[in-house]
Amino acid sequence: MITGISETASTVQSKTVRATVMQVPRLGELEVLNQVAIEIDGDGVIAAIHHDDRLCDLDLGKNVVLLPGLVDTHIHAPQWPQLGTGLDLPLEKWLLEHTFPLEARLTEPAFAAVVWPALVSTLLAHGTTTAVYYATINVETTTMLAATCAELGQRAFVGRVAMDHPDGTPTNYRDASVAAAVDASFASIEAINDIRSSLVRPIITPRFTPACTDAALAGLGDLAASTGVIVQTHCSESDWQHGYANERFGMSDTEALAGFGLMRDHTVLAHGDHLSGADFGIVGAAGSGVAHCPLSNAYFANAVFPLRRALDAGVRVGLGTDIAGGSKPGVLSQCADAVTASQMLHDGVDASIEAAHRGVAGSRVSIVDAFHVATRGGADLLGINAGALDVGRLFDAIAVSTARPGSALQIWREIDDDARRFEKIVRLATPQDIEKVWVGGTQVAGTGGP
Amino acid sequence: MITGISETASTVQSKTVRATVMQVPRLGELEVLNQVAIEIDGDGVIAAIHHDDRLCDLDLGKNVVLLPGLVDTHIHAPQWPQLGTGLDLPLEKWLLEHTFPLEARLTEPAFAAVVWPALVSTLLAHGTTTAVYYATINVETTTMLAATCAELGQRAFVGRVAMDHPDGTPTNYRDASVAAAVDASFASIEAINDIRSSLVRPIITPRFTPACTDAALAGLGDLAASTGVIVQTHCSESDWQHGYANERFGMSDTEALAGFGLMRDHTVLAHGDHLSGADFGIVGAAGSGVAHCPLSNAYFANAVFPLRRALDAGVRVGLGTDIAGGSKPGVLSQCADAVTASQMLHDGVDASIEAAHRGVAGSRVSIVDAFHVATRGGADLLGINAGALDVGRLFDAIAVSTARPGSALQIWREIDDDARRFEKIVRLATPQDIEKVWVGGTQVAGTGGP
Repeated sequence: MITGISETASTVQSKTVRATVMQVPRLGELEVLNQVAIEIDGDGVIAAIHHDDRLCDLDLGKNVVLLPGLVDTHIHAPQWPQLGTGLDLPLEKWLLEHTFPLEARLTEPAFAAVVWPALVSTLLAHGTTTAVYYATINVETTTMLAATCAELGQRAFVGRVAMDHPDGTPTNYRDASVAAAVDASFASIEAINDIRSSLVRPIITPRFTPACTDAALAGLGDLAASTGVIVQTHCSESDWQHGYANERFGMSDTEALAGFGLMRDHTVLAHGDHLSGADFGIVGAAGSGVAHCPLSNAYFANAVFPLRRALDAGVRVGLGTDIAGGSKPGVLSQCADAVTASQMLHDGVDASIEAAHRGVAGSRVSIVDAFHVATRGGADLLGINAGALDVGRLFDAIAVSTARPGSALQIWREIDDDARRFEKIVRLATPQDIEKVWVGGTQVAGTGGP
Repeated sequence: MITGISETASTVQSKTVRATVMQVPRLGELEVLNQVAIEIDGDGVIAAIHHDDRLCDLDLGKNVVLLPGLVDTHIHAPQWPQLGTGLDLPLEKWLLEHTFPLEARLTEPAFAAVVWPALVSTLLAHGTTTAVYYATINVETTTMLAATCAELGQRAFVGRVAMDHPDGTPTNYRDASVAAAVDASFASIEAINDIRSSLVRPIITPRFTPACTDAALAGLGDLAASTGVIVQTHCSESDWQHGYANERFGMSDTEALAGFGLMRDHTVLAHGDHLSGADFGIVGAAGSGVAHCPLSNAYFANAVFPLRRALDAGVRVGLGTDIAGGSKPGVLSQCADAVTASQMLHDGVDASIEAAHRGVAGSRVSIVDAFHVATRGGADLLGINAGALDVGRLFDAIAVSTARPGSALQIWREIDDDARRFEKIVRLATPQDIEKVWVGGTQVAGTGGP
């Protein structure tokens, strides 16, 4: 399915786009730029934003709002075919009977050649301009995923999964040795760099501490230090994982990862629901951060991630779908789910407990802050120059119609101010409402045609 | 916008439809009927289901699954224009500053003539074949809503809202007296019956006890007894409402409603998150039941409704969107949200509490049972002959494509059995995947054309 590799960002025509922008470059601040002219240079970077009525190459019109593109910081690519299933299962059964066998199938290039383009194009249509992937343990199909992203125009971090621990990993889907785990991870870095696309980058990916030996974890920490490639792993997702780390290492998962040299600038820790205050301190000091996956957490994390507390502690946080532990593609729905989960943490869930002791007061997160996390938060976590439509940043953007016939997303001039218009877009926009999607200044998806 | 009233059910041509059916007529049992021929009579009722290969008038093909139509047991029609907004607000501010002023605007026929068709057609496209509406306090626009449902072909219970209590209701949106509340409720019953559509019925609708005087509640109880029209109201939704009833009546909200003669066969109690075990006994014995609105509850109910416990107690339960306290249209998403909320009740939310004491064990609900509640559960709650595609029941149905290009809903033959196919449909189908929607044998919506 991969017919060629394009170096997208270097072939963009400079152009100007007229649009009304809504974005949240800083926590708590919805910024609205009314009918501005955005000048995009040949590298896909915003060169200027003009507040005048100059003629533009493209005018999005009054019924469209331009948002920064969405950053999905946690996706398991080989789980795409099981999206939306198996969520009633306990984690162990879900992993061993469904997920690992499916991931093993995605080491087959013929199957990967079908699954990867379906996944990437669907996510682009949902407005995911940057994606952080766990691929497979296989270098070839991992490289194919990166090539697919480059070809379809998605900014992506693609990780070849390292998992060498004989307990908890299946014999047919496991690195044969420490050396195999580290060597294949290094080979994958080289293969992805060889694609020579400005869009795709490797990411070092020890699956999680229970799936890796100490030697592999240390070897991957060394690899991160020697290559400068960023790291992703799971951290303290569930009661089980949290307890496992304490038992195996005599310390928290966070402390163990730090000890192996994996807690680095821009390390992406999936979930982190059971991080302590001390753990947050370690994560924040390292410049690492959390991929918060609110829907998935309801099924597999045994608790709600305290997003408000993490933000107040200055920890970097992005949002993630956790496909397919989370059952919905696209990050807008995770913004809504993050707000919903934060509300449930705040209020508590068990009506038989007195209201004052039912929840964790002060846990609420607004839709504005959830959107910040979904865009600029994710970009900062990854260290990329995106997440807001500001001068000097990449033009990764989505154009959302607020007037599509038949859409649940409708603006009623009688009642809707900018804040309500923004909340409606985040909560109700579907791929059908997303008219155009750009990555690095190039249009890569959308219902509105090129 | 209303150009005429059709008596839909009596004008249906008898026909046969070939399809694979998936449904949950009984809790816990996913039923799959492979490629059956469904014979529908001139009243829109299923006359026979043939397990043979006879030629049919319509063959839905192998990539489509037929489901019973969805029953939305709780919708505030005049809140449609604010769908997806204001959910960060506390309830009082949400009601007084946003919701009541908007509802008051929907007493204007010109505005209602725009809003009602947008609402009803959007819900039909989401597969909502039966809807239970709170309209406004105004008889004329309430009747217009019923007429819109009849014309667009949606089965509906339409309630003129009674609210006469001087505390907690605004002066410009309140019944002027007890007599006005009861008389207008009666006038609305007559007006809706005068539409003479088999699709639409009135429903007696005291908003909730805080908005009604004792005399109005008693008068509406008498009206229900004398007319046989079913009742809807809110019951023990939040800590505040639960406590309010105890303070005003010296008993639970449930006991108070029963005392006013409102706890009757097929009474629809919205939310009920704070019902006690004794309350469940009263509700179940009366043949009343709960409209469970999982997403809305996260914002306004301060706790998760114990759906598993209610089902185990034999209480009737349907699902509801609670538009616009819930921010999403359509009942499929509420199935997923009901499962998610039940999981969060089961596990708990606060990681700082020991796992064994964090949640309420035994609270999990499966996607199969959630779908039962969304279809047959709702139909039984309302006392209508729908909710499953069985001989003798109405042909209210939706045809879902599992192979639309670009959809996140894709069947992978490599891994998907019937159970996974069903879960994918419930969790991932969007209006774009819903090819056809029938109510009483007549196609009323869908992307697939007539």
